Amino acid sequence: MKDLPLSKVYQLLEPGPVVLLTTANKGRANVMTMSWHMMVEFEPPLVACVVSNADHSFAALRTTKECVIAIPALELAPKVVAIGNCSGRNVDKFERIRLTPVPAQRVSPPLVAECFANFECKVVDTRLVNKFNLFVLEVVKAWTDPAQKHPKTIHHHGYGKFAVDGEMIKLKSRMP
Amino acid sequence: MKDLPLSKVYQLLEPGPVVLLTTANKGRANVMTMSWHMMVEFEPPLVACVVSNADHSFAALRTTKECVIAIPALELAPKVVAIGNCSGRNVDKFERIRLTPVPAQRVSPPLVAECFANFECKVVDTRLVNKFNLFVLEVVKAWTDPAQKHPKTIHHHGYGKFAVDGEMIKLKSRMP
Repeated sequence: MKDLPLSKVYQLLEPGPVVLLTTANKGRANVMTMSWHMMVEFEPPLVACVVSNADHSFAALRTTKECVIAIPALELAPKVVAIGNCSGRNVDKFERIRLTPVPAQRVSPPLVAECFANFECKVVDTRLVNKFNLFVLEVVKAWTDPAQKHPKTIHHHGYGKFAVDGEMIKLKSRMP
Repeated sequence: MKDLPLSKVYQLLEPGPVVLLTTANKGRANVMTMSWHMMVEFEPPLVACVVSNADHSFAALRTTKECVIAIPALELAPKVVAIGNCSGRNVDKFERIRLTPVPAQRVSPPLVAECFANFECKVVDTRLVNKFNLFVLEVVKAWTDPAQKHPKTIHHHGYGKFAVDGEMIKLKSRMP
């Protein structure tokens, strides 16, 4: 994995890919799928996300205030869905689904080796957690896998239906 | 335009398309482009979004607490970029960019006739506005244009680079 400048994080999250979220509670790592996330600030990159209090990851995120957001490419779609179809309450998902946890540098939850990007995050605001399960995170370290060229991400439309990235277009824009 | 059940709103926003946001201040409508949004709750649909306090729309949204989120398909990409390249401070963007405002039912800001989906929204939480420019909205009425079949959305990667929806895949998932 290679360093990604923090200023470029938004270019990978803003397009709305399904992501994986890893947490670690009392030494036990877990992973969930997540589509409810958005950028909040460019740099340092802030990200908001919603983790349901029905999810096993919720308590770990709230308690430890740390997570990793990992972005899977199309090839991982079957694993992405498998992650969503079971709970960390009952199983070790990394083992069951055969994903490779890799130690992160700044947080306890692991990176996911198979993902083309991994962002180490710390929770920086919890004011909307009680009412909306909404956390604000700061990305403190970002990685990309240079071996995965032009990864296609997937975008969830509900119940396992995903739009895969197609053509890339470039228009003349002043918007970052 | 045709009614869209509120329970289906998330299926259009969750995949992370670039959207338009309309506001109206003292009878004057404005429109901006936005990629920083996410679902917060299924039903009633809650949506969080970030509108920079540098944007002309910020004051209108904060003051009137109303907006419309409209989703453009690929064909509107040049207009989406044009909207982002000028400010409502100086111009009437609907006129300049030739978009058709249509009266909404529950809020003052207009729908955008050319978009395949339009969601009328009211601001329901402003606790994170001062620090993060983050608004929580409730979608109170949703519309789709039945004439636009299988619209392809666009996903912003920064500076006018967009991924266009490609292939749709369907996997066996229990996740809504």
